[in-house]
Amino acid sequence: MSVTERLAAYVVDSRLDSVPRDVQKEATRALVNYLGCALGGSIEPALDVAIEALAPFSGERNACVLGRAERFDALNAALLNGIGSHVHEYDDTLPKNYIHPSVPVASALFAFASASPVRGRDFVHAFVLGFEVESRIGNAVYPAHYEAGWHITSTTGVFGAAAAVGKLLKLTTQQMVWAFGLAATQAAGIREMFGSMAKSFQPGRAAQNGYTAALLGRANFTAGERALEGPRGFAAVTAARYDLDKITANLGVDFELRDNAYKPYACGLVVHPAIDGCVELHRELRPAAESIASVRVRVAPLVLDLCNKKDLRRALESKYSIYHACAIGLVRGKGGLNEFTEDALADPELAHVRGVTTAIADPAIKEDQAHIEVTLRDGRKLVKFVEQSLGNVHRPLSDAQLTEKFVDQAVLALPRAQVDAVLERCWRIGELTDVGELARGTRPEQASKAAKRPQRASE
Amino acid sequence: MSVTERLAAYVVDSRLDSVPRDVQKEATRALVNYLGCALGGSIEPALDVAIEALAPFSGERNACVLGRAERFDALNAALLNGIGSHVHEYDDTLPKNYIHPSVPVASALFAFASASPVRGRDFVHAFVLGFEVESRIGNAVYPAHYEAGWHITSTTGVFGAAAAVGKLLKLTTQQMVWAFGLAATQAAGIREMFGSMAKSFQPGRAAQNGYTAALLGRANFTAGERALEGPRGFAAVTAARYDLDKITANLGVDFELRDNAYKPYACGLVVHPAIDGCVELHRELRPAAESIASVRVRVAPLVLDLCNKKDLRRALESKYSIYHACAIGLVRGKGGLNEFTEDALADPELAHVRGVTTAIADPAIKEDQAHIEVTLRDGRKLVKFVEQSLGNVHRPLSDAQLTEKFVDQAVLALPRAQVDAVLERCWRIGELTDVGELARGTRPEQASKAAKRPQRASE
Repeated sequence: MSVTERLAAYVVDSRLDSVPRDVQKEATRALVNYLGCALGGSIEPALDVAIEALAPFSGERNACVLGRAERFDALNAALLNGIGSHVHEYDDTLPKNYIHPSVPVASALFAFASASPVRGRDFVHAFVLGFEVESRIGNAVYPAHYEAGWHITSTTGVFGAAAAVGKLLKLTTQQMVWAFGLAATQAAGIREMFGSMAKSFQPGRAAQNGYTAALLGRANFTAGERALEGPRGFAAVTAARYDLDKITANLGVDFELRDNAYKPYACGLVVHPAIDGCVELHRELRPAAESIASVRVRVAPLVLDLCNKKDLRRALESKYSIYHACAIGLVRGKGGLNEFTEDALADPELAHVRGVTTAIADPAIKEDQAHIEVTLRDGRKLVKFVEQSLGNVHRPLSDAQLTEKFVDQAVLALPRAQVDAVLERCWRIGELTDVGELARGTRPEQASKAAKRPQRASE
Repeated sequence: MSVTERLAAYVVDSRLDSVPRDVQKEATRALVNYLGCALGGSIEPALDVAIEALAPFSGERNACVLGRAERFDALNAALLNGIGSHVHEYDDTLPKNYIHPSVPVASALFAFASASPVRGRDFVHAFVLGFEVESRIGNAVYPAHYEAGWHITSTTGVFGAAAAVGKLLKLTTQQMVWAFGLAATQAAGIREMFGSMAKSFQPGRAAQNGYTAALLGRANFTAGERALEGPRGFAAVTAARYDLDKITANLGVDFELRDNAYKPYACGLVVHPAIDGCVELHRELRPAAESIASVRVRVAPLVLDLCNKKDLRRALESKYSIYHACAIGLVRGKGGLNEFTEDALADPELAHVRGVTTAIADPAIKEDQAHIEVTLRDGRKLVKFVEQSLGNVHRPLSDAQLTEKFVDQAVLALPRAQVDAVLERCWRIGELTDVGELARGTRPEQASKAAKRPQRASE
């Protein structure tokens, strides 16, 4: 059997009782983290704009956009859920390939489940499989694929969404092979879009396109059958080097969910170690912004490749700035949603620290590390080396921290009582008789929404 | 100004009276050729399947699928028009970069115009601009992009559709820059899908995605502003070598439509010279199939790269077979739609000639040439060298030949009187007060359709 066929057969034949309990638990944690991000992002202008532009093109309005009053057909809802859940850059990450894995898969699944009844156990199972498919394809093409400039979250996410929705639609192996072919024909998204609304559009489109691939596969719309391994297939076309064995090795034994990481800071993962160290310095010494003469941060070379923006024009760009990262850590001691708004961008204390920060790419520094050296006006030097940053798989967020992160975001969109009800349901998602109730439960109660519209990042 | 911005400004600022008359005429010829293909393909199972699968996801049903009774929203109609007009592989080609340029642009424009009134002159103008945009981007990345395995028709077509629809939506230059960014994030489609329904899905999706990019751009959904030239932009990510000057050189002076070619045969362009020579041998000598002992065809190396399928399992695959190409030319003396059906595949005379045909890649043979040597059982040798194949820009189809090609295809879907009425309107498309009338005029009259459903290729 070909690689594509083996992967398709695995998804089709998998039974939930063969998924280890710890993996099912991690799936639940990932879904709690996902749903919090979707609610926090549901108030963003990027989503407002997309909803308004696409409203005339919605079919039967039987699916939810998470955290919103508007209804769309399930394909459009998948796209819009993806925009909302990724726009704050607060969703999860696989550190070994930089995929943000939950957004493409869960955005499609919640859209599906809000329109058609899905049992919690089937939902979690489909999520595990979609997560596994995209992550393994990502492992096969990383790093060449990512280095070439592909937004690996969307290019692999389309396969994950196809697998997850295809599982719920009960595709045959042949149909799943075609769905993977149709996913491969739609795999897209480039890193040039980082720092704009198009960044979150990409995983949203992956969710929608993967969903479409599954629908067409079920209808026997044929596609090339070597989507992954063919000489003109996904791997060969999009990666100078790749290893297809990573797609099939230990399928059903090793699970990528075990390596999933949840962000403590609402920005690009690679600047987290720097924020982490600066937050520690803030806690230890609380240096006043004006007392800081210079900051010298040594980071892994990838950090400057991705996050070397110093002259920031838009709030979204601040999520990709090693300079801004150091500033918020030192001055505010945190990196929540409020640290990446227009107000934060205009904050003179943060601007001062950004201005005096220098970043050096150092191949000796690992990607979850940072070395920070702050010189104060009085001549004192503060030094901090972060060996492993918070949120890293070796220092994971606890269930309590995930709950806290969920609430911090969800209260931006929903009243506290509703937040608690949604959260309680989400923690036991695997036991629900219909996940649609959870999705529909995120619809904001009309009165509360307009009352306190907080500062938003994606203008 | 950046390359992306210059191209956007050109589209936004262009006036129809600055488009030379010969280019406007060629646009009309391209649209006649396009519409004939769309009508011929409208009866294909690929389209039936897609229509059935996507019907529940259509918004307001105010747009036409060309040649069909079903109505969809304009975005879905753009996709479906693209599937129908490309599925027979009979649409136009730019020989210098192998883009099939009209499908992505015209599929979006006809969908748009069927839902909202558009004057003929504005329609032709938008078509010229979309065609120009995709063709120039294609020139910039060809051949590295195509050799890597990208289906250049869809990867560049999404920009063409964005430009064309964006022109009708009257985007500002800033909005057009964003639309190009959103096109770049959706640029996809790989050659591994050739020979399956997914092949025609790709330019259809490009039409739909480009249309979406224009809608979002108009709504001020932001995107990276260096879609084409950025270090992680379209050219750098998808082509090992590229020349961005080809995008902007002589903009508004040179027009790519002047190099457009229309296929006389319903299959991959690169096998046309071989069919051409075999058709000539058929006309001269009419060799009986069983009298043919061997065929030896020397072709440009690209032909074997693309069309080396001898063991054919599906009708669509026959469109990519140099062996089948020789067989239909020698045995039937033509290469119309009926030469690429399941019946043709099963024809024992064609199977015999495919079986005795050998193809040799010869770098001395140009891509519009072929050298054919047929050995008969009685020992005679027939030799033909095709120096420039029919349909080539140096041997273009006449208006009369385009009319004949249109009718041959359109009668598969519509009664003859309706075909003539549609054709007459299409030849004067630039003068119409509302192109929507032309699009709506392709709706089949109920009675005639089911009566004679011909053999179809895309099962």
